[in-house]
Amino acid sequence: MNKPLRVALVGHGFMGAAHSQAWRVAPRFFDLPLQPQMELLVGRDAERTQDAARKWGWAGSATGWREAVTREDIDVVDIVTPGASHAEIAIAALDAGKHVLCEKPLANTVEEARAMADAAARAQTRGVQAMVGFTYRRLPATTHARNLVASGAIGTVRQVRAVYLQDWLVDEDSPLTWRLQQDKAGSGVLGDLGAHAIDLAQYITGVPLAEVSGTLATLVHTRPVPDAEQRGTGLGGGAGAAGTRGPVTVDDVALFTGRFEDGVLGSFEASRMATGRKNAFRLEISGSLGAISFDLEDLNFLGFMDYTLPPDRQGFTRIMVTEPEHPYLSAWWPAGHSLGYEHGFVHQAKDFVEAIAAGTAPAPSFADGLQVQEVLDAVARSAAKSSVWLPVR
Amino acid sequence: MNKPLRVALVGHGFMGAAHSQAWRVAPRFFDLPLQPQMELLVGRDAERTQDAARKWGWAGSATGWREAVTREDIDVVDIVTPGASHAEIAIAALDAGKHVLCEKPLANTVEEARAMADAAARAQTRGVQAMVGFTYRRLPATTHARNLVASGAIGTVRQVRAVYLQDWLVDEDSPLTWRLQQDKAGSGVLGDLGAHAIDLAQYITGVPLAEVSGTLATLVHTRPVPDAEQRGTGLGGGAGAAGTRGPVTVDDVALFTGRFEDGVLGSFEASRMATGRKNAFRLEISGSLGAISFDLEDLNFLGFMDYTLPPDRQGFTRIMVTEPEHPYLSAWWPAGHSLGYEHGFVHQAKDFVEAIAAGTAPAPSFADGLQVQEVLDAVARSAAKSSVWLPVR
Amino acid sequence: MNKPLRVALVGHGFMGAAHSQAWRVAPRFFDLPLQPQMELLVGRDAERTQDAARKWGWAGSATGWREAVTREDIDVVDIVTPGASHAEIAIAALDAGKHVLCEKPLANTVEEARAMADAAARAQTRGVQAMVGFTYRRLPATTHARNLVASGAIGTVRQVRAVYLQDWLVDEDSPLTWRLQQDKAGSGVLGDLGAHAIDLAQYITGVPLAEVSGTLATLVHTRPVPDAEQRGTGLGGGAGAAGTRGPVTVDDVALFTGRFEDGVLGSFEASRMATGRKNAFRLEISGSLGAISFDLEDLNFLGFMDYTLPPDRQGFTRIMVTEPEHPYLSAWWPAGHSLGYEHGFVHQAKDFVEAIAAGTAPAPSFADGLQVQEVLDAVARSAAKSSVWLPVR
Amino acid sequence: MNKPLRVALVGHGFMGAAHSQAWRVAPRFFDLPLQPQMELLVGRDAERTQDAARKWGWAGSATGWREAVTREDIDVVDIVTPGASHAEIAIAALDAGKHVLCEKPLANTVEEARAMADAAARAQTRGVQAMVGFTYRRLPATTHARNLVASGAIGTVRQVRAVYLQDWLVDEDSPLTWRLQQDKAGSGVLGDLGAHAIDLAQYITGVPLAEVSGTLATLVHTRPVPDAEQRGTGLGGGAGAAGTRGPVTVDDVALFTGRFEDGVLGSFEASRMATGRKNAFRLEISGSLGAISFDLEDLNFLGFMDYTLPPDRQGFTRIMVTEPEHPYLSAWWPAGHSLGYEHGFVHQAKDFVEAIAAGTAPAPSFADGLQVQEVLDAVARSAAKSSVWLPVR
Repeated sequence: MNKPLRVALVGHGFMGAAHSQAWRVAPRFFDLPLQPQMELLVGRDAERTQDAARKWGWAGSATGWREAVTREDIDVVDIVTPGASHAEIAIAALDAGKHVLCEKPLANTVEEARAMADAAARAQTRGVQAMVGFTYRRLPATTHARNLVASGAIGTVRQVRAVYLQDWLVDEDSPLTWRLQQDKAGSGVLGDLGAHAIDLAQYITGVPLAEVSGTLATLVHTRPVPDAEQRGTGLGGGAGAAGTRGPVTVDDVALFTGRFEDGVLGSFEASRMATGRKNAFRLEISGSLGAISFDLEDLNFLGFMDYTLPPDRQGFTRIMVTEPEHPYLSAWWPAGHSLGYEHGFVHQAKDFVEAIAAGTAPAPSFADGLQVQEVLDAVARSAAKSSVWLPVR
Repeated sequence: MNKPLRVALVGHGFMGAAHSQAWRVAPRFFDLPLQPQMELLVGRDAERTQDAARKWGWAGSATGWREAVTREDIDVVDIVTPGASHAEIAIAALDAGKHVLCEKPLANTVEEARAMADAAARAQTRGVQAMVGFTYRRLPATTHARNLVASGAIGTVRQVRAVYLQDWLVDEDSPLTWRLQQDKAGSGVLGDLGAHAIDLAQYITGVPLAEVSGTLATLVHTRPVPDAEQRGTGLGGGAGAAGTRGPVTVDDVALFTGRFEDGVLGSFEASRMATGRKNAFRLEISGSLGAISFDLEDLNFLGFMDYTLPPDRQGFTRIMVTEPEHPYLSAWWPAGHSLGYEHGFVHQAKDFVEAIAAGTAPAPSFADGLQVQEVLDAVARSAAKSSVWLPVR
Repeated sequence: MNKPLRVALVGHGFMGAAHSQAWRVAPRFFDLPLQPQMELLVGRDAERTQDAARKWGWAGSATGWREAVTREDIDVVDIVTPGASHAEIAIAALDAGKHVLCEKPLANTVEEARAMADAAARAQTRGVQAMVGFTYRRLPATTHARNLVASGAIGTVRQVRAVYLQDWLVDEDSPLTWRLQQDKAGSGVLGDLGAHAIDLAQYITGVPLAEVSGTLATLVHTRPVPDAEQRGTGLGGGAGAAGTRGPVTVDDVALFTGRFEDGVLGSFEASRMATGRKNAFRLEISGSLGAISFDLEDLNFLGFMDYTLPPDRQGFTRIMVTEPEHPYLSAWWPAGHSLGYEHGFVHQAKDFVEAIAAGTAPAPSFADGLQVQEVLDAVARSAAKSSVWLPVR
Repeated sequence: MNKPLRVALVGHGFMGAAHSQAWRVAPRFFDLPLQPQMELLVGRDAERTQDAARKWGWAGSATGWREAVTREDIDVVDIVTPGASHAEIAIAALDAGKHVLCEKPLANTVEEARAMADAAARAQTRGVQAMVGFTYRRLPATTHARNLVASGAIGTVRQVRAVYLQDWLVDEDSPLTWRLQQDKAGSGVLGDLGAHAIDLAQYITGVPLAEVSGTLATLVHTRPVPDAEQRGTGLGGGAGAAGTRGPVTVDDVALFTGRFEDGVLGSFEASRMATGRKNAFRLEISGSLGAISFDLEDLNFLGFMDYTLPPDRQGFTRIMVTEPEHPYLSAWWPAGHSLGYEHGFVHQAKDFVEAIAAGTAPAPSFADGLQVQEVLDAVARSAAKSSVWLPVR
């Protein structure tokens, strides 16, 4: 039997369910060098946390995150709370020698993110690992996209276009959850979906963004205050009992243009108001010898265009990324059998466990998370300055 | 100036409009060896024919097809009447030394088709050409498909699947036009759409069907008798004034399995009751090294799957068949600019004129049309015998 | 805590992994009335079974299926072995009072299936439940399709077309696994994929097939005999060491036409030679007021065409079946977050547990499985008689 | 017979072929109040113009555009020359009392466009009409989109996203035609494709852009100088004989964000470097009650999402815009039979003729063309000022 790797999960919203599934499932399909054990679930409300722990299969529960950090028998602290609390928990955990997996965006401000990256760098010298949870890197299609680009299959990258479109705020009476409040969420769709677009574009091209010109907008300015019960749940939930409306203090729509360090231009849009688009994270990368296209709503497929073929055979090939030759796939089902959203989390858990066991720094690192935060910050600052171009650093 | 090629068109329903457009447009985009002249339009009703001739740009009009056959100054007789009249007109025209283009299906019965093929063979010895109008062969995508298959791009053909789905009979009150009457149309969806499926499958694979097992069905048994005015128009039209219903004497749905001469199996379906499918002629050919897929509703595209590529790059490529390297395309617009339904007719006119000028037999010949008729007949006979397999010949 | 429901799984190929995931995950997302416990994994080889049990989280392992049947502390026997062994195990388990979940097709012959259905009927009187594993019924999109049809959303069903296309036998050197041997697999693609097509078509329309006309074909007649190691694994695997080839004794392609009890015609195709199609189980149902379309390669989507809309707004709507209002979805992720292949198995486990707890007969029953077997048998008999139409019963 | 409308066409590149087809075909499908006559084709080279006139069916040809303006027997001057010459020709023609149809973009500068709009306003008082050729408004799908938006089918417009992607400049050795030279083309992809995106977005929403923030880029800085023969042909053509390269003086990529007068945000991209995209003019409009999506590569279809439907039936409906109820369609083929690129030009000719006959001002007017020019100009000025937001006027 492999040595155990004892995990504490801090937070139990929708992301808690996804991370729980990852820890539960990863060792059942992948041969991991350490055996994850679902030790402790941490929440704010004792009863609800206990219920969640029982349902999801965590050995115990607690109401303060410090227990996760201080307990001797915890090896990993996995943080899925709203962004405002990431820095404090993650830094304490790293300083206590716990490996840390932290949901994206890394923090709500550049300052917090920088402190976290510093803590991660210090921890790294002691063999303690930190990773930020950009799971969309870990889908077979996106990893395959990166591999194709890295192999030169599309030649020199020339243009990037990324949109991440959802529509859960189209209804003006969708409730005012924590995600719509600046003090809790830091930003709106920019930090939530825009962060994914930035990370994935940089990951697949292998080049960071150097400067940006951005525009932010809030299309619906007030929304119903939800009941206390619903306040913490992130997505969904009904209107407040009394019909009270409160101010939306974050952006619904974020548009920006970016220039990567090699001069390549990218266009980016993130929206929660794109009627009819449920999870349309679409990325297209045009190169001198081909192109890549991806849509998260069809996550088992990757579009690949090979410009070196004879002109009468060119076009986008719809690759079903479920062959054993595709990333992560040999552990799963026969060709043609779809994976889903949660598999990115399973792959993330696998990769993190392997990095811990190997003592190597996992990617994306907290420094990567900080860089994304700096891009987000530059977009917001540009938006406040008539969209003038600003350097990321 | 090129020598003129004087055309008479017999019939002026929806097909008449398409053929008129073909004669009008072909010499404007292609450099033709003979100059088509739209000389004479023939119909049954003098006034309506005259109106159509004026609108479509025919120099004159007549009410009897014999005028087209007997006039010295007519070189080509183009027949777009209902199938029951094809044989008489075509044979007379060929015997009178006119080149003949005849709409599909060639005839309503094998006997008529055989007489036509015989007449065409006789005419051919005198340099008089005959062609049957399977225009879907002349779309850039289908011609490209044939070229790919012929070049070995999909290896040995192993399976064919063809469906041709329309839905204009879903409404039980859609009128009882000539297309729904056996004495005029010969058969229903089998001869109308099934004939296309048979021809295109044979054309692209290059192999004729040898035997078939078929099933025919009429799903709606009576329909409103249309006004006299509407009776001749083929598609569309409202219900009869008096609300009288008459019997549908042809099939709405035709299903059959075919075995090609090389043993390959094909599945075929033609339906006018496929709710929501407007013109979904879909053909897929699976081979040992690849596959081809086509859908007439997306006629500017061809799917091509190359099984010889590395497994992680395989999939159907959506080729936009609008490059100058694609069939017929160098005469048209820049890459990416769509052609439409009517362009198949333009290409047909072009190919027919070139064959006439060259004195070579055009394809598909009347013998080809006869063979399709034999397949249709075998399907109908099989359907009447509990779907037992029957040889085509 | 809920009462436990102790499960033994017999078989540990690819289906074993899927069923293990189902038992593991179902109670973590659904509130089940009984708590499944993964008690015993049964295989033929002691060491490999033990390894699989450890990896997948089964408490123990055994090499004879009788242990699963006789042990007092087992409540459910879940059978995922090749079809030849289903009858013996299932009947013994039912007679021993165990609830039985059995993979499809229910058996290799009608006789075996009938004996199993009889055993299930007897067991049912004692409150012992039996279910056959047509998991594709349990995808949100297919369940939604059935609900739409049942609600009258497409009016009267008029036509069914179902194809189930895979391509894992395109390579002539793909090995001769048990799935290609009649004595083990019963039939080839007919029983494997055709069974799914039959069940799903009947499930969604709510009407059983009454008669069929079929054609079977084997396109590649010999294949390399695999190493002993690979023989049992079902899909994949390399060629035999010595390069020996053995005869393929089952069908690669199955084509059939069916008439449902209400007279509706359906066309069916199952193929393992459909180059480029990985898991293209496509079902289209045309009705008098609309239509449904589904493709397993895009399992999070359902096509729905509403013929009652104004003509200028009609078309197939691509419904992303991930809303909380959709079947099973409220237990999973927010709208737009894809499920995968394995979720059908999770839903199957949930539904089976609920039926056991409620003491109600689960569907599809062994009688349903027998009926599918009868359809398969009628297709094979028709194929042997020149595709003549034969009644299912 | 209707009164004739005698047309002179100035220019005979690719646009000349499209406009010729429009004048030729429009009266054959639509009942026009005036009968267009293809009187005069004007080009620079006498022989090539004569050849083109003969091929395309123009009665005569000339080498100076003034002949078109001065001849008594010309009613309409149709201008399809490069943008630099639009103003001079159009103003002279209008002043001479000719109706003018002018290709887009209206001119190369705002000043020229303003002079043209002034001339058109003057002419309008004398019953002389002027129209700018944004043909993509005249596709059935785009007109239907506008009608749906205008009818309130998507509620209040909230966001617009438009990309127009081509890839004919991906090859660095694609020749330096007039379209890549600022003095002839005015701008690059911004004026060519960006102009279409602006016009169509404004047309469908019914609201003009008020301010913009833009970025322009040239990705390939030098290209081969083509032979004299090829210089005038716009698209395509081989490299210069001597291999000389010259500077590209226009933009390959244009990215901009716009704010419409009602505050709605739109994102825009135009690129000639989008590898694998041939003519991907994609427009999506999100509203409070629904959404519209369009792709020029699939021009017979319109996506429509109705947010007022029950959540379990929502999604984008793929409307095949070929029903008689759809704009322009009653003149064409039965439902399901595709139109192509050129049909937009046919509809444009029809609409222009009808406006002339009715004596009403056609749309888009030269004032509309000027406004698009002002948007283009504001984008270019913003791009030169670090993308700062600038008002259109």
